[in-house]
Amino acid sequence: MIYLGVDLGGTHIGIGLVDENGIIIQKEAPTLAHRPYQQVLETIVGACRDLIEESAVDQNDIRAIGVGIPGIETPSGMSHAKNLAWNGVPLRADMSRLLGKNTYIDNDAHAAALAEMGYGNLKGVSDAIMLTLGTGVGGAMIVNGKILSGYNHAGGELGHVTFVQGGIPCACGRRGCLEKYTAASALIRIAKEYALRHLNTCLYEKGEDLNDVTAKDVVDGVRNGDTACKQAFEDYCEYLSDGIVSFINMLNPQKICLGGGLSKAGDILFDKVREKCRERYFSPLHMETEIVPALLKNDAGILGAAMIAKQND
Amino acid sequence: MIYLGVDLGGTHIGIGLVDENGIIIQKEAPTLAHRPYQQVLETIVGACRDLIEESAVDQNDIRAIGVGIPGIETPSGMSHAKNLAWNGVPLRADMSRLLGKNTYIDNDAHAAALAEMGYGNLKGVSDAIMLTLGTGVGGAMIVNGKILSGYNHAGGELGHVTFVQGGIPCACGRRGCLEKYTAASALIRIAKEYALRHLNTCLYEKGEDLNDVTAKDVVDGVRNGDTACKQAFEDYCEYLSDGIVSFINMLNPQKICLGGGLSKAGDILFDKVREKCRERYFSPLHMETEIVPALLKNDAGILGAAMIAKQND
Repeated sequence: MIYLGVDLGGTHIGIGLVDENGIIIQKEAPTLAHRPYQQVLETIVGACRDLIEESAVDQNDIRAIGVGIPGIETPSGMSHAKNLAWNGVPLRADMSRLLGKNTYIDNDAHAAALAEMGYGNLKGVSDAIMLTLGTGVGGAMIVNGKILSGYNHAGGELGHVTFVQGGIPCACGRRGCLEKYTAASALIRIAKEYALRHLNTCLYEKGEDLNDVTAKDVVDGVRNGDTACKQAFEDYCEYLSDGIVSFINMLNPQKICLGGGLSKAGDILFDKVREKCRERYFSPLHMETEIVPALLKNDAGILGAAMIAKQND
Repeated sequence: MIYLGVDLGGTHIGIGLVDENGIIIQKEAPTLAHRPYQQVLETIVGACRDLIEESAVDQNDIRAIGVGIPGIETPSGMSHAKNLAWNGVPLRADMSRLLGKNTYIDNDAHAAALAEMGYGNLKGVSDAIMLTLGTGVGGAMIVNGKILSGYNHAGGELGHVTFVQGGIPCACGRRGCLEKYTAASALIRIAKEYALRHLNTCLYEKGEDLNDVTAKDVVDGVRNGDTACKQAFEDYCEYLSDGIVSFINMLNPQKICLGGGLSKAGDILFDKVREKCRERYFSPLHMETEIVPALLKNDAGILGAAMIAKQND
């Protein structure tokens, strides 16, 4: 079965034809997100038609279309996405009509989790949590093989649970949200704080103001034995482990899958987080939860979008 | 359809025959939890037989049996309950065999939520969260009309999510769990802290050491304008609201149902919590989540146990 997956980002639109083995053919178009909805829609639809035309795939073999958007579709079928200034647009109905295929919309963080379920480290897993450790913390809960999105499809904001009550202000309007302590950007912030106390840290090699320090710089510092980086990483892993154990206590998943830039740190991150989680388990049954890295990189958006179609059609 | 509900507590066993209107007939037996499993089982089975005999109900009209236990049943069908020193006992198989009816086991906090779904304030609700504010914080998540209990049935520990990272030590072995800030016992602790600063508080009427202060005393103090009580209650509602909004951000339920002793505080609690939650919502869609009190009191255990049978049979 072939599905058309559309990964709609704030900058680029990735489009691909996908079967059970992965992406058959793909192309990209610019989103130009400042434009009105109607024009963005035309770009998407045009790029989909071009891709089908360029491919050797018979239009009739395409079963349905899935779209991952940086926002949500409400139960009434209207799409909302802040970065695109969409406040209730009929994307599903428009694409279904213009392309003549059933179209299904879901959040892009959900798409990333679905991609792991179809093609990555969550294959065959019925109950899982995906956490994406990037500038913020995105996520998805998978229960009985389905994404859990809540009554209005507005759930799944795993980064916006209180983690330090009254703590660091968050863009969501509250304080102390988990993402302020476990995003890749949190690791950078903590490392900068330690750098002020350890003036010989390698982080100053990136400039005296520390503005250009990346999460990778901190992880490299840990590998090279840099004291400030090691202390920051220790704190960060402490936070991340406490967050993970909270989710395990609530949802008792089979696997926790960590994606996003920071998950590329590999064993240095996973070994420490697994160890800290083991020290914190509430029930021996929770020890069975495996903590694994996301497998898919750049193609996750298109694969996940295709999975949105597959799951719903 | 009639179900037999067994509410197995650490002290008492409540047993009832239940139909769509509620409890038809009920009786109670002492648990005597220090005894071996086999003897507790005999007490349960004997009391069930007695109740059926005493009732006018035809044995054949009883469809199935549900049991709420202070623990969990793992997917392999073995029951675990710390307070009963059960570390994997075949309660389901034994009761099914001895009473000749399909028997289903679930956690007692889940049973309380199921009771609200069947007979209380969650009737007709597909997606909800129940929080029981007592000595600890129990809870249940309801998704698509079903209790969410996780891969090993060891989820639903809503009181054991990190709320103040590195905060007050919790019995679960971690620090800063939500229940240390939102249980009824947390309100008492906070009120005592304020009492040390406001020596004219009414709480000292319960004795100089404050050992006998109850959550009801603090709520009564709020109603009477007592400064220490008012400040403690304000902090408590702040914590509870932050906890509730976290669950809404994750699970986006239709309703949040608050039970346990503290929910009896009524409007003084609910008005404040609803107001504080409104200030904290991430998405306008989250504003649709209603925060309601649990309706059922003493009968919740038996009604919920019967619902365990109804849901699973």
